[in-house]
Amino acid sequence: MRLAVMGAGAVGTSVADLAGEYGHTVTALADSSSAVLDAEGIDVEAALDRKSREGVVGDAAPDAALDADYDVLVEATPTTLDDAEPGFSHVAHALERDKHVVLANKGPVAERYADVRALESASEGEVLMEATVAGAIPALSTIADVGPQHVTAVRGVLNGTANFVLSRMAAEGLGYEHVLAEAQDLGVAEADPSFDVQGTDAALKCVIVANILYDEEYTLADAEVAGIEDIPGSALELAAEDGRTVRLIGEVSQGSVRVGPRLVPEHGTLAVTGTRNIVQLETEHAGRLNLSGRGAGGPETASAVLADVGRLAR
Amino acid sequence: MRLAVMGAGAVGTSVADLAGEYGHTVTALADSSSAVLDAEGIDVEAALDRKSREGVVGDAAPDAALDADYDVLVEATPTTLDDAEPGFSHVAHALERDKHVVLANKGPVAERYADVRALESASEGEVLMEATVAGAIPALSTIADVGPQHVTAVRGVLNGTANFVLSRMAAEGLGYEHVLAEAQDLGVAEADPSFDVQGTDAALKCVIVANILYDEEYTLADAEVAGIEDIPGSALELAAEDGRTVRLIGEVSQGSVRVGPRLVPEHGTLAVTGTRNIVQLETEHAGRLNLSGRGAGGPETASAVLADVGRLAR
Repeated sequence: MRLAVMGAGAVGTSVADLAGEYGHTVTALADSSSAVLDAEGIDVEAALDRKSREGVVGDAAPDAALDADYDVLVEATPTTLDDAEPGFSHVAHALERDKHVVLANKGPVAERYADVRALESASEGEVLMEATVAGAIPALSTIADVGPQHVTAVRGVLNGTANFVLSRMAAEGLGYEHVLAEAQDLGVAEADPSFDVQGTDAALKCVIVANILYDEEYTLADAEVAGIEDIPGSALELAAEDGRTVRLIGEVSQGSVRVGPRLVPEHGTLAVTGTRNIVQLETEHAGRLNLSGRGAGGPETASAVLADVGRLAR
Repeated sequence: MRLAVMGAGAVGTSVADLAGEYGHTVTALADSSSAVLDAEGIDVEAALDRKSREGVVGDAAPDAALDADYDVLVEATPTTLDDAEPGFSHVAHALERDKHVVLANKGPVAERYADVRALESASEGEVLMEATVAGAIPALSTIADVGPQHVTAVRGVLNGTANFVLSRMAAEGLGYEHVLAEAQDLGVAEADPSFDVQGTDAALKCVIVANILYDEEYTLADAEVAGIEDIPGSALELAAEDGRTVRLIGEVSQGSVRVGPRLVPEHGTLAVTGTRNIVQLETEHAGRLNLSGRGAGGPETASAVLADVGRLAR
């Protein structure tokens, strides 16, 4: 497949970098201020090299990538809320051209799911979004295989930063601020970690799952969200005395979306450690399925993007 | 899709039972001595009721089901070794008729993989086999999504009976013979449990994975297999003192297939308890993925069969 990659952050550059290995060609790559296009396939290495030296991937305007020759638009610009722009317009433009869309950007399908599906219905193109939920973990493809109508609940640890902080606090007996600073030093937490530690990121993933499971449209406003900022070390100590620990759990069940700190068994399936994520599906006929692995990271998320591209190619 | 179901054991009857819920029609169902056919859709409930009363599902000969009107042949007769008959001939017959095949029977793809793929190449039909490895767990579809060439190793607990015995021995400090008898009483172990406790069943699953990962053909004869019959309770006690336990682990890596009892961390990911299975994939770009759930059972395995049918329908 020929790919146009919008966004040259960790995920976009990894997709561009790995595409050739999966048998695909990158015909366009755009960052926020530039683009490089070549219908025969761009020189990915040269573009990324130029980005690291000059801050741009090429000489074209970013939106030129939207009109390039491609089969699949990979939307990997940063997730934005409300109108989900500019990601949403990129998706709309590709679908209007009857091209496929693979999303790593959560915004369009968390905040404007019905709009995306309406555009898809009117298009020859298809929209896939495995990379928007739990990185490398095959959460959405497993829901599709089981059949959304046979999935009764989805819960899990869906944010690696929050999980890193909680597992370090529990393991080392350290306070929230201390561990957060450490996570920032390690590059596990962003300078502004609010999206992760307040539960917003996990909630967006749950909202996407709810949109897939249920008929009505969900947005972030429909989620009940609590973060981990106010958890004292003493709460983790108390939990440990009872063989439990605290995890930031997202849950979609019976039409509701909730994210918040929950007590879970210390050695239980949900108590993944470090930046790992886990997705637990409750199914009607196949019991409980647990899927765990790396929920974020450039190559990990790119691997989910390329799994979707492979699905479109088959 | 219209399904012909060969085999009316736990898996075949569950497939027939659930097919309608997934939007499919069963046009033929065969057990070892009879079949029932109807191009408009058989009355599944009546057929299963007749089987429980009279021991037969219908008045036709079993092989008549092979020539019925269907889109997909579901092969759910018991797994057999060596020539993998009669399953193999059922697969061949369907492919020669340009029909799709979904396997729950491991024999044809563990013992005669190259023959099956050769028949598939000459056919308009496609062969899928998710249900042959770890029941409801989406092992093979995840390998397909990641890309077999990007999976560097697959290991896991692939036999629920052996795992039940080992976890009960460890948890209760009981001996092998005692726990096995208990498992037989509960219906978790068969009257002749050798296929499970000697590692054969887990090895067949690993052989199927090796056939998918590697270019050359593997059969059971290529697997190095040890079972759990000779594990004394004292070995589990010794392991526990060191924070470990014993699990029957199957592993496919670097061109080799091995099954045997291994020491694993007591609270580690591989130490699933009871009849649960786990499949761990090591991937080149996405790190380690853990997939766990119910590895056997009628509805659970039927759910993997119906996921394959759904994939063929898309």
